[in-house]
Amino acid sequence: MTTNRFIVLKSRPSGKVRASDFEIVAGPVPSPAGGQLLVKNLYLSLDPGVRNLLGVEEGYLPPIAIGNKLSGTVLGRVIETRHSSFEKGDLVLGRGWIGEYSLIVPNDLCWKFDPRLYPTLSSAIGVLGITGRTAYFGLLEVGRPKTGETVLISGAAGAVGSVAGQIARINGCRAVGIAGGETKRRRLVEEFGFDAAVDYKGRSVPELSAVIAEACPNGVDVFFDNVGGIVLDAALSRMNWAGRVAVCGLISQYDAAPPPRMTNLFYIVAKALRVEGFLLAQFADRYAQAVTDMRRWIAEGLLRYREEVAEGLDEAIPAFLSLFEGTNQGKTMVRLR
Amino acid sequence: MTTNRFIVLKSRPSGKVRASDFEIVAGPVPSPAGGQLLVKNLYLSLDPGVRNLLGVEEGYLPPIAIGNKLSGTVLGRVIETRHSSFEKGDLVLGRGWIGEYSLIVPNDLCWKFDPRLYPTLSSAIGVLGITGRTAYFGLLEVGRPKTGETVLISGAAGAVGSVAGQIARINGCRAVGIAGGETKRRRLVEEFGFDAAVDYKGRSVPELSAVIAEACPNGVDVFFDNVGGIVLDAALSRMNWAGRVAVCGLISQYDAAPPPRMTNLFYIVAKALRVEGFLLAQFADRYAQAVTDMRRWIAEGLLRYREEVAEGLDEAIPAFLSLFEGTNQGKTMVRLR
Repeated sequence: MTTNRFIVLKSRPSGKVRASDFEIVAGPVPSPAGGQLLVKNLYLSLDPGVRNLLGVEEGYLPPIAIGNKLSGTVLGRVIETRHSSFEKGDLVLGRGWIGEYSLIVPNDLCWKFDPRLYPTLSSAIGVLGITGRTAYFGLLEVGRPKTGETVLISGAAGAVGSVAGQIARINGCRAVGIAGGETKRRRLVEEFGFDAAVDYKGRSVPELSAVIAEACPNGVDVFFDNVGGIVLDAALSRMNWAGRVAVCGLISQYDAAPPPRMTNLFYIVAKALRVEGFLLAQFADRYAQAVTDMRRWIAEGLLRYREEVAEGLDEAIPAFLSLFEGTNQGKTMVRLR
Repeated sequence: MTTNRFIVLKSRPSGKVRASDFEIVAGPVPSPAGGQLLVKNLYLSLDPGVRNLLGVEEGYLPPIAIGNKLSGTVLGRVIETRHSSFEKGDLVLGRGWIGEYSLIVPNDLCWKFDPRLYPTLSSAIGVLGITGRTAYFGLLEVGRPKTGETVLISGAAGAVGSVAGQIARINGCRAVGIAGGETKRRRLVEEFGFDAAVDYKGRSVPELSAVIAEACPNGVDVFFDNVGGIVLDAALSRMNWAGRVAVCGLISQYDAAPPPRMTNLFYIVAKALRVEGFLLAQFADRYAQAVTDMRRWIAEGLLRYREEVAEGLDEAIPAFLSLFEGTNQGKTMVRLR
């Protein structure tokens, strides 16, 4: 019998996520029930959003129980199928286990894909997978920028933010990024072609608000927010009338205890803002268009991306923690052999 | 020469608004310039939103400078016109001065009206004026409740909130109100027909969240928020997937220093919420429909309202302050002779 190794939640993090909250456990590889797929994982996506599943509150998915397997986006090959739309050997991307094998129940966030359409296998889980599609639909469908508008992006050096900023520019907008630290700030302008970028580190809300104003002389029409907290608070103060905030993630708030005071929420009324969260699956019927567009932009050199690939399951926990340290560079994933 | 008496801003309130921040001043009645109307005010609307204009930050209107006239919604009769769409003797509602006479520049929030279509003149500035229309469009167009959904309303005993709750019920929704104090709470159920109501006073966010959960066993689909702060924070924790928050006002935050910590903003992502501010003028092309609907609902006994009418300009300042004390009952206005 083959063994599966996977990560389980050992304790519920009360603040900062620690390595000791997780454990690698071995167990039998299960058989798929009706409607399920058994997949040998090739790549595991590590996403800050998984932090939402470690708390006690129910979000779009129920929280993971102590002792249960961590789940997330995986890319793998079907080795046993009990679902009529999938065959043995298919490459799939879906919600599986952070481990060597996954049972997958196909849904809106699970798709089969043709590797010939992807420049690399890792791009299918990164820039052309969940992260890139999240940037694409979050910016274009939730933020709805118009040509000539200013788009501000927080967490802009991250896998989603860097793609969102470049798509803003491709759509004729001024793209301004917010990132933590001078290295990331410079990378936004020099590597990803943002029109301007600011460093939020060590800045109070009024200070950050002032540097945003400098970088956005015409105000902010769309704010694509991956961060929340004081970064959101500062950005709200610079929104233009009828501005849109696409709330992609609030990574700063997962660990924060206590959460920051919000001084600028009244701009939601004063400027008639729309602040909107979203889930990628809402746009499932248009995935193909997103992949086609982004593949073309990559080929034309308009869309660049970075990947940070950890090797083997043993590296998955440190790589996951790096998402919250701000030390990761680009889309973070684990390659399994 | 006739004299105009009006209220000017004497000092910028840094926290709570005080009577000493305002002064009644006398001056000449001005002549209208091209495009303007000179109006003898009959009713002055007192609205919490005016608080936005007393600070230093620019909202949908620029802040009022120290020594300048307070402006707000007024209802009056045109006594001199230099605008081709208005004649002497017309009854108009528009943005004017909180005083005996106003110069009005007609815009989307200024309209001429036929008093025969309104049960009383005061209803034209209240339930069928800005407040009622704000409730109507904020609920139906921003909140977009569907039959059978649960609509939660904060500031529910106020002029806007009480109308929003009744319109929710007329549209087949469960209406649940939040108000301050047992008297107001009971009035919501007994006078305005809400399905349930809770008192936020003296409650922490988790406590308020728990009583909201009790009153909304199926969760909250639409939250019509007049209050913000901890009330908004508690309500966010009870929103259903793809819920909508129509942000009508954040009255609790005008005076608050420091503003409350927001613990539940992450639900915007976790539940894919839409949180949206609005300005009534966005719906100017559909005012007639709102008035027709609400007039019918009043006639049918489905829509009730209260008015609190102060007599004479000298009572305007205490009546304005009452908006922030929670002591006013229903739409607050001043009648001038």
